[in-house]
Amino acid sequence: MTASGRLAELGIVLPAVATPVGAYVPAIAYGTVVRTSGQLPLEGGVLRTTGLVGEGPGCVSIDDAASCARTAALGALAALAEAAGGVDAIARIVRVVGYVASEPGFTGQAAVLNGASTLMTDVFGEAGRHVRSAVGVVSLPLGAPVEVEVEALLS
Amino acid sequence: MTASGRLAELGIVLPAVATPVGAYVPAIAYGTVVRTSGQLPLEGGVLRTTGLVGEGPGCVSIDDAASCARTAALGALAALAEAAGGVDAIARIVRVVGYVASEPGFTGQAAVLNGASTLMTDVFGEAGRHVRSAVGVVSLPLGAPVEVEVEALLS
Amino acid sequence: MTASGRLAELGIVLPAVATPVGAYVPAIAYGTVVRTSGQLPLEGGVLRTTGLVGEGPGCVSIDDAASCARTAALGALAALAEAAGGVDAIARIVRVVGYVASEPGFTGQAAVLNGASTLMTDVFGEAGRHVRSAVGVVSLPLGAPVEVEVEALLS
Repeated sequence: MTASGRLAELGIVLPAVATPVGAYVPAIAYGTVVRTSGQLPLEGGVLRTTGLVGEGPGCVSIDDAASCARTAALGALAALAEAAGGVDAIARIVRVVGYVASEPGFTGQAAVLNGASTLMTDVFGEAGRHVRSAVGVVSLPLGAPVEVEVEALLS
Repeated sequence: MTASGRLAELGIVLPAVATPVGAYVPAIAYGTVVRTSGQLPLEGGVLRTTGLVGEGPGCVSIDDAASCARTAALGALAALAEAAGGVDAIARIVRVVGYVASEPGFTGQAAVLNGASTLMTDVFGEAGRHVRSAVGVVSLPLGAPVEVEVEALLS
Repeated sequence: MTASGRLAELGIVLPAVATPVGAYVPAIAYGTVVRTSGQLPLEGGVLRTTGLVGEGPGCVSIDDAASCARTAALGALAALAEAAGGVDAIARIVRVVGYVASEPGFTGQAAVLNGASTLMTDVFGEAGRHVRSAVGVVSLPLGAPVEVEVEALLS
């Protein structure tokens, strides 16, 4: 099944591509590659939540952060599709980098990023399997809890 | 106009390529790609300033940090030019990653990185537009406030 | 000498490829490129140590962290070799990214990452020389002190 077919089956409508918060572009395609800028978990252009991810009171929970990672990955998919000339022009997801704004001592970054990674396999199946780095950072632009960057290959 | 022409027009002289602070090289070219190591804001081989970026007393201000990001990006451009065989051998800037050593709670990383991004469009025009990730890290080598990594395409 | 010859000469046996701690793969090869996920310093599937790197009491020391970076780089080499179809199918190491879980104020990330970088030149000689970014992060998956990601070219 095509990626657009899987999106329809999953009831997913790609969001509008987020306006960059600085002097850069959302995604770029060249040669066989298409890559995104770091994407924040925006819905309707607004951050879903802000704060540090952790297990203490006042923190963004792992579950909420994983859901934010999926939202950021959806934004990445929208940016990839726009730069590639449509989601079906994406042959394969090759790499995801995830930055998690982390409370000191929080070590669950992998679980958070699974929210982004599973979106890729949900939509692309085997072609969505990728390499990944996940790290805990002290803070992110606008106070976002996660930032997700994606690299893919064009078909 | 060529990149070297724009540099001359802007009165910018590329610095000497910084000596790596470890067992690596400043930049590497292969195939159609040229990429730098993370570059620190060095002037004459010395860090312009050290410390965390933030809004509190004793912090590096956003404006100073953005200026440091531009300095680091100049160093990246020098490294790219050396590896590529001259700045005019660079066809297009495709990606910038910026790490900002951030005071807890500082969320202005995008404004800081604009110092690096605008250098690229100043010098390369449309061909300087790139994807970017900006994150806040707890600390950087030598106490640098920013570290900037750049990837470009060869002409 | 081949990379496998150098490994034998150095008495290095590549470890088993680590099972990903999330929904991703250890390494991926496509076109002329082979890249790893972020690798943690695992021995026999277990983290060698956990904690923040720094100079204070209770911290992972620079020397121990550099040794962990070498262990993580060995894991990366194993993952590259598996995806490439053998270590001798790796023509050149082009990039290393190193994340160091850092005590606030720790700025010795370059020394830590030399543990990874020197492994690459030990095994590949000139073809092991790479670009590198090293940053200090607040925390890493499972509490690892370092995470190392590697990109290489296929022969």
